[in-house]
Amino acid sequence: MSNSTARTPSSRRQRSDGARSREAILREATRLVTVDGIEGLSIGRLADAVGMSKSGLFAHFRSKEELQLATIGAADAIFRAEVIDAARTAPPGLTRVRALCEAFLAHLERGVFPGGCFFASVAAEIDTHPGPVRDAAIASAASWFAELETAVKDAQHEGTIDSRESPDQIAFELDAYLLLANAQFVATADPSTLDRARRAIDRTLITAAA
Amino acid sequence: MSNSTARTPSSRRQRSDGARSREAILREATRLVTVDGIEGLSIGRLADAVGMSKSGLFAHFRSKEELQLATIGAADAIFRAEVIDAARTAPPGLTRVRALCEAFLAHLERGVFPGGCFFASVAAEIDTHPGPVRDAAIASAASWFAELETAVKDAQHEGTIDSRESPDQIAFELDAYLLLANAQFVATADPSTLDRARRAIDRTLITAAA
Repeated sequence: MSNSTARTPSSRRQRSDGARSREAILREATRLVTVDGIEGLSIGRLADAVGMSKSGLFAHFRSKEELQLATIGAADAIFRAEVIDAARTAPPGLTRVRALCEAFLAHLERGVFPGGCFFASVAAEIDTHPGPVRDAAIASAASWFAELETAVKDAQHEGTIDSRESPDQIAFELDAYLLLANAQFVATADPSTLDRARRAIDRTLITAAA
Repeated sequence: MSNSTARTPSSRRQRSDGARSREAILREATRLVTVDGIEGLSIGRLADAVGMSKSGLFAHFRSKEELQLATIGAADAIFRAEVIDAARTAPPGLTRVRALCEAFLAHLERGVFPGGCFFASVAAEIDTHPGPVRDAAIASAASWFAELETAVKDAQHEGTIDSRESPDQIAFELDAYLLLANAQFVATADPSTLDRARRAIDRTLITAAA
């Protein structure tokens, strides 16, 4: 057995512990951001929230901007797992369109983030502040919009949405309902706002049916 | 002429100068808020922006919260003048419903506030922070929603929207398009996002027609 092989399990364990810890820190950071904003996220405030020293956190993130970008990456991964991957178990086409919308509403209802949709919250906060943090948040929101649009195109190919409809128009309408449901649900905690979104989704998909 | 009558013109002039100045300060505050957030609005920062001393501003607003509430009141007055009163020149009913939506989109396009819709911006920021500032912002957003809903009810009375439709459902759909158009227009400055909202409004109003 060579020294390098002998070191592997220990290095792996260290990497794994480091990764777990980083993941746990970032999960807490995503939750803080939907309540206090991405610009309110600092290494000092996060250190308090996770009960670590600022210097311990500096080992993970060397600047506020690096922490903000890592948090957006973590939120993107959570959103993908909780919403997009959940919906991808549905077959492509109209079923997937509905599954994406429903998975989004379900992630609000489950309170995956305490302040509702992470990207709606961050985009509204920093849409007027040019820089890499804004660009990363807007890229994540755009990638969700593209996911909806692709599902609509697949539904057009299967013949369940009229091929004369513009996919980005349908995606716009669906995303609009989800965004307002998010705003109203966070403001009121009233689940009937989610039902209004469901009825609106029905109207758009029924009138756009082939 | 009594002393009290003699003092009137001078007192009036003082009140009027004070009011103008307060109005100008608050107009600048509403613009700052849609860029930096309502929690970033402090007497110190506003003093810099309007070129006044902090003590001069303290004569108008005795605390950060008083300034925030006055700014929300000022934004509400601007929104009423630019959007609601503009649309009220249209007759009640379907024409008013369309005029309200169009006046909202026009206020985005004209850049009345540099960060788009004041209340969408503030609500997204503080919806998770209980207190009078949050309540005031949410009350203004709710009053806009009620205005849309009333216009829909009037359209049902005139027979241009099906009376079996739920007014709050129609208002939800219209407001959703406006909210997403706002988010996308602020993020991209692309006026085609406003056209997507217009097409969506058409779909809802045409399918809900009596």
